Amino acid sequence: MTYSIAVSGASGYAGGEVLRLLAGHPEVEIGAVTAHSSAGEALGSLQPHLRPLAEKTILETTAENLAGHDVVFLALPHGASGEIAAQLPEDVLVIDAAADHRLESAAAWEAFYGSAHQGAWPYGLPELPGQREKLTGSRRIAVPGCYPATILLGLAPAFAAGLVEPTDVVVVAATGTSGAGKSLKPHLLGSEVMGGMSPYGVGGVHRHTPEIEQGLSTVAGTGVQISFTPTLAPMARGILATSTARLADGATASALREAYAARYDDEPFVHLLPEGQWPATKHVIGSNHVTVQLAVDERAGRLIVVSASDNLTKGTAGGAVQSMNLALGLDETLGLNLLGVSP
Amino acid sequence: MTYSIAVSGASGYAGGEVLRLLAGHPEVEIGAVTAHSSAGEALGSLQPHLRPLAEKTILETTAENLAGHDVVFLALPHGASGEIAAQLPEDVLVIDAAADHRLESAAAWEAFYGSAHQGAWPYGLPELPGQREKLTGSRRIAVPGCYPATILLGLAPAFAAGLVEPTDVVVVAATGTSGAGKSLKPHLLGSEVMGGMSPYGVGGVHRHTPEIEQGLSTVAGTGVQISFTPTLAPMARGILATSTARLADGATASALREAYAARYDDEPFVHLLPEGQWPATKHVIGSNHVTVQLAVDERAGRLIVVSASDNLTKGTAGGAVQSMNLALGLDETLGLNLLGVSP
Amino acid sequence: MTYSIAVSGASGYAGGEVLRLLAGHPEVEIGAVTAHSSAGEALGSLQPHLRPLAEKTILETTAENLAGHDVVFLALPHGASGEIAAQLPEDVLVIDAAADHRLESAAAWEAFYGSAHQGAWPYGLPELPGQREKLTGSRRIAVPGCYPATILLGLAPAFAAGLVEPTDVVVVAATGTSGAGKSLKPHLLGSEVMGGMSPYGVGGVHRHTPEIEQGLSTVAGTGVQISFTPTLAPMARGILATSTARLADGATASALREAYAARYDDEPFVHLLPEGQWPATKHVIGSNHVTVQLAVDERAGRLIVVSASDNLTKGTAGGAVQSMNLALGLDETLGLNLLGVSP
Amino acid sequence: MTYSIAVSGASGYAGGEVLRLLAGHPEVEIGAVTAHSSAGEALGSLQPHLRPLAEKTILETTAENLAGHDVVFLALPHGASGEIAAQLPEDVLVIDAAADHRLESAAAWEAFYGSAHQGAWPYGLPELPGQREKLTGSRRIAVPGCYPATILLGLAPAFAAGLVEPTDVVVVAATGTSGAGKSLKPHLLGSEVMGGMSPYGVGGVHRHTPEIEQGLSTVAGTGVQISFTPTLAPMARGILATSTARLADGATASALREAYAARYDDEPFVHLLPEGQWPATKHVIGSNHVTVQLAVDERAGRLIVVSASDNLTKGTAGGAVQSMNLALGLDETLGLNLLGVSP
Repeated sequence: MTYSIAVSGASGYAGGEVLRLLAGHPEVEIGAVTAHSSAGEALGSLQPHLRPLAEKTILETTAENLAGHDVVFLALPHGASGEIAAQLPEDVLVIDAAADHRLESAAAWEAFYGSAHQGAWPYGLPELPGQREKLTGSRRIAVPGCYPATILLGLAPAFAAGLVEPTDVVVVAATGTSGAGKSLKPHLLGSEVMGGMSPYGVGGVHRHTPEIEQGLSTVAGTGVQISFTPTLAPMARGILATSTARLADGATASALREAYAARYDDEPFVHLLPEGQWPATKHVIGSNHVTVQLAVDERAGRLIVVSASDNLTKGTAGGAVQSMNLALGLDETLGLNLLGVSP
Repeated sequence: MTYSIAVSGASGYAGGEVLRLLAGHPEVEIGAVTAHSSAGEALGSLQPHLRPLAEKTILETTAENLAGHDVVFLALPHGASGEIAAQLPEDVLVIDAAADHRLESAAAWEAFYGSAHQGAWPYGLPELPGQREKLTGSRRIAVPGCYPATILLGLAPAFAAGLVEPTDVVVVAATGTSGAGKSLKPHLLGSEVMGGMSPYGVGGVHRHTPEIEQGLSTVAGTGVQISFTPTLAPMARGILATSTARLADGATASALREAYAARYDDEPFVHLLPEGQWPATKHVIGSNHVTVQLAVDERAGRLIVVSASDNLTKGTAGGAVQSMNLALGLDETLGLNLLGVSP
Repeated sequence: MTYSIAVSGASGYAGGEVLRLLAGHPEVEIGAVTAHSSAGEALGSLQPHLRPLAEKTILETTAENLAGHDVVFLALPHGASGEIAAQLPEDVLVIDAAADHRLESAAAWEAFYGSAHQGAWPYGLPELPGQREKLTGSRRIAVPGCYPATILLGLAPAFAAGLVEPTDVVVVAATGTSGAGKSLKPHLLGSEVMGGMSPYGVGGVHRHTPEIEQGLSTVAGTGVQISFTPTLAPMARGILATSTARLADGATASALREAYAARYDDEPFVHLLPEGQWPATKHVIGSNHVTVQLAVDERAGRLIVVSASDNLTKGTAGGAVQSMNLALGLDETLGLNLLGVSP
Repeated sequence: MTYSIAVSGASGYAGGEVLRLLAGHPEVEIGAVTAHSSAGEALGSLQPHLRPLAEKTILETTAENLAGHDVVFLALPHGASGEIAAQLPEDVLVIDAAADHRLESAAAWEAFYGSAHQGAWPYGLPELPGQREKLTGSRRIAVPGCYPATILLGLAPAFAAGLVEPTDVVVVAATGTSGAGKSLKPHLLGSEVMGGMSPYGVGGVHRHTPEIEQGLSTVAGTGVQISFTPTLAPMARGILATSTARLADGATASALREAYAARYDDEPFVHLLPEGQWPATKHVIGSNHVTVQLAVDERAGRLIVVSASDNLTKGTAGGAVQSMNLALGLDETLGLNLLGVSP
């Protein structure tokens, strides 16, 4: 069977990446592509890399234009997806790349987003313990944020095994500029970005913070609090996350390594690298793969985990397609057998 | 039927790209991977992005280790492929990414390469007039250089239609650093490359010059001479070629546009962009696609054509796989349905 | 004596670079800094690198706010400088970084800019033959465009010596993104720029074309016509220009080299590199230096000249300060003894 | 008086940056420049950006060639400076950019460098409490490492004021590739670096770790232990350090801000930015300035400090020249009044 797909936000980076992946997916057909200010234009004028789709016309993003398809991808600004989803039949698979349905805690939502909580949907990170099952057959899926996906895959095995402490967790991550989307802001100009690094959202205020804490707390079975600092790096794609936590009593390097291996050895997209080899974002660019490596700093009593992803692929569109495959009962890896484009 | 493939030079950029593409090709199986100084190591330590092939052991590059496969890709330094090819059976498909068998003129070879001419093999650029037929069923193929592939696809239709003059052709092109391979030279260090541009091989001495002239002369049916200047740009991949030639008497913009459309409208990988849209290397990175656009400068009496490619894909490994498909009688696009990774 | 300076357009890249240079100039004092949408803000919030000037308040750009200083730098959009200059006393030195007063030909101005010609001011490129004298003591100066400055310094000696032909001149140049200023356009986003190259203004339509032709024609003593194609490179600063022209009868490599040496050996900022060494933009970034090298392609019968500059320094603000020094009778190099920041 | 200077390691990045700064220093004259494999060549062929010094001949690095000057800069590999310094008179000012004389603890030296400890020299970071006095008149100075300089300037005020805890200090920093010097290693090739980030020296093994701990412990008056993870960013220059520590009981954001302001308000090169403005490496590239900003994360109970520097300037050569000025009794800022080259 071929599934018909509608993609909103098709003029943006997330929507474009969904389309790039779906164009190579053997079981789907791209139906409607929608956007807002570019409605009426040919897709090829906005996403020139999507050559086979170049002549598709972009429709206005409305529930009407998205209806009548088996799967609807929402790659819209935060706050816009709830209303559209409510107008789509319950048996349509709706996959939301925005934050709207990621947080279970209304208090956390309101503290970080300042609007009314809309309830959580199944969280599209199948590599978390027990999560794959929750996605199978689901018809509403919240795609994780790009930082949370990368950081949770880096830290979850240690918390799941009880080998690190839930306080004084510190994460510093670097992202490529596509994480900020196509918004026209001065600090995102090439002249400003190339050749330099800068932080943003410092001091525990980045909106991905509660999402990371939610995932780690669920896995740990106890409340986990993190200090998270994101930085902007001079590259278009990629996240490199350095996550560090205090070792629990008795935690050893070998126990940690075993815990990660047990968790990831059978995963198709998450890889614990051989000892001595460290993740680099270049090796996963354009792919749905995430690489992970860890070290124990005996002097400081800390675990340091580094994880690398492509923020637009596993961090957004690839995770979305992987979740779609699970929800539809397809092979989880369909359309995602792309390797990193390196160098 | 599944074809067994051997890839030499597997530790380098060209070999790695051949493997990236073949890993997604439905009709092949990767047999031997060989290299020189890294023989004995796991492929994953040298090409960490090729995750499914990470545990393959690299063998020493010898005719013995490459024998016994249906197809052998040679991604070796110039001068090394002739000897190896001579030791492989004639019914093995040998695809050479080096320059050794590209030039038909012994004099041109000797002038630019300074060694004995080894004879030309069918030239792996099927989009040139009449060339597709020469590749079908062939068992020896010379992969074009990355500059010639990009520049020939840019200029050939104009010469084939007799709409430009064969003298005073001027080409200036920018390449990403992967075109220089993994050789450890000071000017290729990231510190030297990032943030700047520089020329090299200026004054008609770059070795791709006679190859470009050979292709244009064949198409034009008369000797074409070019001034070619390559430059090194701060990017890992991509070629942007600006090619300009004097208009022939009576040549018009519409005649030129028609000539290009006629040549490329049915090509799967070469695209004349809609008027007003210009090629950008980012839109084809990681893909086998080449984009082309042209303008007529009435004041200067010149055609200006810009073409963009990924030097490692259509410029090397993608062109090689496309040629392999033709030689084996397969669908020309197998394994090559990848879209550009953008942004 | 200390000269008081006013700088308009102080929030942009050109204005910021003028201020960076003047902050280290021993004979000036920065008076007013003006801009438009950021009037009222501290300069440090818009130009954080200008630390000693961080607390200066930006004024609105009006003739009143610019009056009362010895020198006024205009770094405004095209079309705005004439009106302001008309309101400033004739003995105030006005230096215009916009195009408004560069072209002598009203026809060329109207063809490329589509507005009424305002007349030409002395052209601020003292290295052109006879030009230094015209700037000394002048009170109105038009700063050359960044491409024209770089290309004229590359080609002028050959034309002045009559060693190249005035037709079939072809120039392809790459610029850093700061050449496009701080305007918020999608194609200037870091995500779009990094990792790729693209052309723009193809086909003889770039507005710097008549300015280059004007300079070359003056030097050659005959009309020179060029084909000029600009490209956008993934770097913040720098221009690399590849300029090529047909050799005149009897022109030799040694005659050309002598002509360039004679012209530049005593210049403080323009350097003919030793044979074998080629210009790279990295080596002049942040400095007022321009490097030049040439080669003769005997096969193609062409001279190829490569010249490199920092588009914001010698290409704009440095040339402006150099011209100011000449106009005021100061040592031409004051405030400009900065070396390239490399790597 | 004009001081005569000799610079060893003149072919490398640190040596080149020392020369770039000294070329604009009003009280010095560059005498000998020395290196190893490039001895006999013109400086201009190795450091093309140092135009006024281009014709100086590089001498072999020997004590003889360095002798006879008032000041000797050593920019040599670790382990080489002790022997040379021992052969220079005690009244010659020797400034060592290597690590050899930075660590006071023989145990720490041996643990991290694996060779015999050579004793500590006065540490060239005058902004640390009490440090300026130790440098004045000194004749042996150890230049701080680039990471320690940047991180100590970020964290020292908090520790000096007793406002943070000495355990669970976590630092993650990104550096430009010039920090690795000109060594020809595959992972430093432009093709590998551009477009990606990667970590190195993970797990508390980077050699700058004990140097940072030494500086913080001295300032805090108690032993401080850090977890330090360096990462390699796709830029040639710059360090962005994110440093975080647990708040001491009763520490408030305002107390912290006051402590930093008190420490830095009179410093010429270290700047606490206005609230809301965050450090970016681009704004200090090419300059001796360091920018610092801080935030308190109440939820996580942590101080987060971000500091930005140019690793080659304040992180190496600029700090060296600043220390030289102090040692010679000159104005501390001579030769260092350069602003960041931005964008």
